[in-house]
Amino acid sequence: MTSISTRTQSIDAQLRERAARVIPGEGMYGHMRFVGSDTPAEFPQFFERGSGAHIWDADGNEYVDFFCAFGPMILGYRNERVERAAAAQAALGDVLSGPTARMVELAERLTDSMPSADWAIFAKNGTDATTIGMMIARATTGGTKILKARNAYHGANPFFTPSSAGVAPEDRANLVEFEYNDIESMREAAASVEGQLAGIIVVPFLHDVQSDQEDPNAEFARAARRLADERGALLILDEVRTTLRIDPRGAWERYGVTPDVTALSKSLANGHSLSAVVGKEHARRAAGEIYVTGSFWYGGVSHAAALATLDEFEAMGGVARLEQIGSLLRNGLAAQAQSHGIGLRQTGPVQMPMIAFDGDEGFAKALRFSGAAARRGVLLHPWHTNFISLAHDEADLARVLEATDGAFEELASSGLA
Amino acid sequence: MTSISTRTQSIDAQLRERAARVIPGEGMYGHMRFVGSDTPAEFPQFFERGSGAHIWDADGNEYVDFFCAFGPMILGYRNERVERAAAAQAALGDVLSGPTARMVELAERLTDSMPSADWAIFAKNGTDATTIGMMIARATTGGTKILKARNAYHGANPFFTPSSAGVAPEDRANLVEFEYNDIESMREAAASVEGQLAGIIVVPFLHDVQSDQEDPNAEFARAARRLADERGALLILDEVRTTLRIDPRGAWERYGVTPDVTALSKSLANGHSLSAVVGKEHARRAAGEIYVTGSFWYGGVSHAAALATLDEFEAMGGVARLEQIGSLLRNGLAAQAQSHGIGLRQTGPVQMPMIAFDGDEGFAKALRFSGAAARRGVLLHPWHTNFISLAHDEADLARVLEATDGAFEELASSGLA
Repeated sequence: MTSISTRTQSIDAQLRERAARVIPGEGMYGHMRFVGSDTPAEFPQFFERGSGAHIWDADGNEYVDFFCAFGPMILGYRNERVERAAAAQAALGDVLSGPTARMVELAERLTDSMPSADWAIFAKNGTDATTIGMMIARATTGGTKILKARNAYHGANPFFTPSSAGVAPEDRANLVEFEYNDIESMREAAASVEGQLAGIIVVPFLHDVQSDQEDPNAEFARAARRLADERGALLILDEVRTTLRIDPRGAWERYGVTPDVTALSKSLANGHSLSAVVGKEHARRAAGEIYVTGSFWYGGVSHAAALATLDEFEAMGGVARLEQIGSLLRNGLAAQAQSHGIGLRQTGPVQMPMIAFDGDEGFAKALRFSGAAARRGVLLHPWHTNFISLAHDEADLARVLEATDGAFEELASSGLA
Repeated sequence: MTSISTRTQSIDAQLRERAARVIPGEGMYGHMRFVGSDTPAEFPQFFERGSGAHIWDADGNEYVDFFCAFGPMILGYRNERVERAAAAQAALGDVLSGPTARMVELAERLTDSMPSADWAIFAKNGTDATTIGMMIARATTGGTKILKARNAYHGANPFFTPSSAGVAPEDRANLVEFEYNDIESMREAAASVEGQLAGIIVVPFLHDVQSDQEDPNAEFARAARRLADERGALLILDEVRTTLRIDPRGAWERYGVTPDVTALSKSLANGHSLSAVVGKEHARRAAGEIYVTGSFWYGGVSHAAALATLDEFEAMGGVARLEQIGSLLRNGLAAQAQSHGIGLRQTGPVQMPMIAFDGDEGFAKALRFSGAAARRGVLLHPWHTNFISLAHDEADLARVLEATDGAFEELASSGLA
């Protein structure tokens, strides 16, 4: 029975109430949970539709969206070329009793375009890809230990999840942590597991939640490569979040660093469920020996969508265009913050921006700013990587900067800044 | 450059050659790998399309398909109602910057229809669902140990995968095995981890590959429930393979056994990538405490497809119709085998049949029979669960039984039988 108070509530509030009854975590779980004090009260929890760089919440409010579905959206929601390719494959069949030719074509496409790829395995989750990378490192080397940077997020299974709930100590027994961008700490971690090292898993740049992003030091990237070689271990580059956005050939190619195994996902098929593990020839035998599989991993629709995404990414301007739009946002926000006398930190590559405020321990300023931006039709996350897509254009950015100017003004006059 | 020999090869053979260059495992991995001596040489590796109960390989050969994509296909390939619902949602958006109302509707639908469901979590792989179930059991109870039946398949991550390649001993340290349908062995396993037990994960009937399926003993099911209660542990029913096919309310409801947590996947959205964990009220807090998530888990298309699948499953006749068609196959094969003097074992529920031949240690007879059936346009797996769908009809079964009669004849005259 619907009470008067709920009948007059927003659709989002009604959905939250219904969700709280049938979904754990007070109605939502994981990174899509916008319930509680971690996120601005202005953030909608439920969405109705998306188109290009724009998204509409369940109540019909429109936003320019920099969450980009937390990474998967790179060409814009419902990109026509991708959706046409997906629909054409769906009209034949998606998950069948074996793979389609699309799977081979996509593997060929990745091995043709990435120096780190002599073969490819496809799965569904980013976590599948990082876990398969870890298993291949072990099966290649005979070691069991995996080095990772402290706090770096590599997925959400018992081996990698950042929470300890539901995790046994044994699940993590083979993880050894070091400090990102700290060569000495990485070498010490490797020395501590002498003779048992299987691999080093590392993100192309540090993108922990709730802390400034760190661009990688080229020397750190090269040292990771050298250390893996010296120890007979594999270098696993976790490109789940960075897929396509830094460099479609591989994010560390600019440093001359080619990983042994790379985990890809998120934007690989512009929102269709897909992840991939690609690797070098010397890891192929091991990649064939491990037993990994999934009911939906061989479905042609996600492979067809990825092939179209790779084409369309280049056709729409690729990384250079992402950087162009990302720079408009970064420069615009920097000028506005300065004019309002607000200390703003913008970290990470311009196409994957993180914003943070000086002296903002409990994120009160960030929440206030992001909430004010949301009220003005812009979704900018207060403590997670944001994403530029190829659908964001100059007109969007003009609208965004008008909204953020108002949000800075609101923050400046709130007494918080 | 294409040589004359490859130019004259089948499309399937050409795709296998290309795949072997860019995909590990000689061109395929996991349960879709039809390469080598485990499967008949007649099995195609690559498929072009599916429609209803029929599937076409890359060379255009048509089959009546009892693999059913190894479970996901339950209403027929490209079921119109499901695909219409999926397309309608895709026209709004799939993976957005938050869930859609479809997620709440699907959670409500499952909690309304399953006595074991007070809440639901959605993911992508069956392995996600079993792993989340395990984590919830631990977070509910404080224990770490999980009991499972020896050889029972519950997924393909390091905790559950049947292969040891890439797996460290610690990954499995919390798994304790017992014998399926053996109450004493289950109770002994529980006693061996006194005070540390988190959960018992169990399939509704034993469907190991390469061995006869075992119907569950009602007493065994009830004993598992009782043991979990006595020990303060959770009973996790792994319905990934059986989803909808035994009983949409829950496969053990017929025994009066309601699990604490149930893992669903495969046929839940008729081939769209989706898995779900549902559970009872007392596990809700823990389900909200664990951190599990995935980039594509909140996408509305799979939720919309599942809602349509649940409607259509009942509209097409549900379990009763699956059993009707499954009985036609079982009775037909039994009569044919007898008339050819061949010892055939058919095990498991009629809607999820496994076939095996007496005195067939190395599966030579099964491979010969399945290969002969494939040549005659019928895909029947020699050592894995087969699946009846609601798209299989009496006309299909007549065609199938004509083919299998020829396959039995071929086997009888081969000298193997």
